[in-house]
Amino acid sequence: MTLSLYDASVPVFASMMRNMRAWLDKAAAEKDEATLLEARLAPDMKPLPAQYQMASDSAKNALARLTGTDAPAMPDTEQSFAELRERCDKTIAYLTGFDAAALAGSETREVELRFPNGMGYRWAGAAYLTGFALPNFYFHATTAYAILRNAGVALGKPDFLQHLGMPTSPPSSA
Amino acid sequence: MTLSLYDASVPVFASMMRNMRAWLDKAAAEKDEATLLEARLAPDMKPLPAQYQMASDSAKNALARLTGTDAPAMPDTEQSFAELRERCDKTIAYLTGFDAAALAGSETREVELRFPNGMGYRWAGAAYLTGFALPNFYFHATTAYAILRNAGVALGKPDFLQHLGMPTSPPSSA
Repeated sequence: MTLSLYDASVPVFASMMRNMRAWLDKAAAEKDEATLLEARLAPDMKPLPAQYQMASDSAKNALARLTGTDAPAMPDTEQSFAELRERCDKTIAYLTGFDAAALAGSETREVELRFPNGMGYRWAGAAYLTGFALPNFYFHATTAYAILRNAGVALGKPDFLQHLGMPTSPPSSA
Repeated sequence: MTLSLYDASVPVFASMMRNMRAWLDKAAAEKDEATLLEARLAPDMKPLPAQYQMASDSAKNALARLTGTDAPAMPDTEQSFAELRERCDKTIAYLTGFDAAALAGSETREVELRFPNGMGYRWAGAAYLTGFALPNFYFHATTAYAILRNAGVALGKPDFLQHLGMPTSPPSSA
């Protein structure tokens, strides 16, 4: 009745970043890139590039915090689909550099988020992953998808779920 | 380095359904309910009530499949915020009726999704939860949030993350 923190993090984050990268290819084939780069769902929500950047940050910071290491800096300078693809690739390469052994002990590792004002939050690693890192990651991944759909890009649920754990062979129809 | 399937499912689903219920209260105080009930992000995406219904389905079907039991039928007839709140409440009551012992063995339990055409997918329980049930649930929860934000409702990230695992007491600022 348990799940490894590795299985609950690295393949999940990496697969969704691969999906997010693929959405850019579909979007570029259908719509004007400059328009999509400015697209957002509400005036006080961030546009598409920031959703990619925050998904990347959520994933890489989760692995860094769970392993007690430093995540590579990625300074959020992306201004084109080519640069967003590169951000996805760098994030995926970082994530998939971890193996299950690297997450040994991460369930109980203390994770602290501290904000510039000195306040912050503290969790055990497992609670941080399920209660903050994963929902925050999915928030930004889904918001990126929602921005593209709202802008008329023809994505569908399979574009969101593919690679995530869909078995390649369906059961027999017997 | 492990996480219980209970911790990765019941409190996560139930907390987000509580958040989704609270979004309805904020939305009703700000905007016209009838307009919001028709709101969607794209002509070929489902409107707000369906996003609530599919989030509910994702969560209750996950627990039913992981425990090898039947989920209560909820026939997707909701046409008002009052009925959507009731749907949230029924879903939360069902989810929180499971305890950790009910998920014993669920990591390796075979889960099968079968579509009307006879095709389908088969997973071990842990892979089903991380690779299908959770991403599908977060997809619909975030899309509901995105519809409300796109319609001008003043929600913010704390409305999405609250209850999920945010510790109530921050670390000292020492």
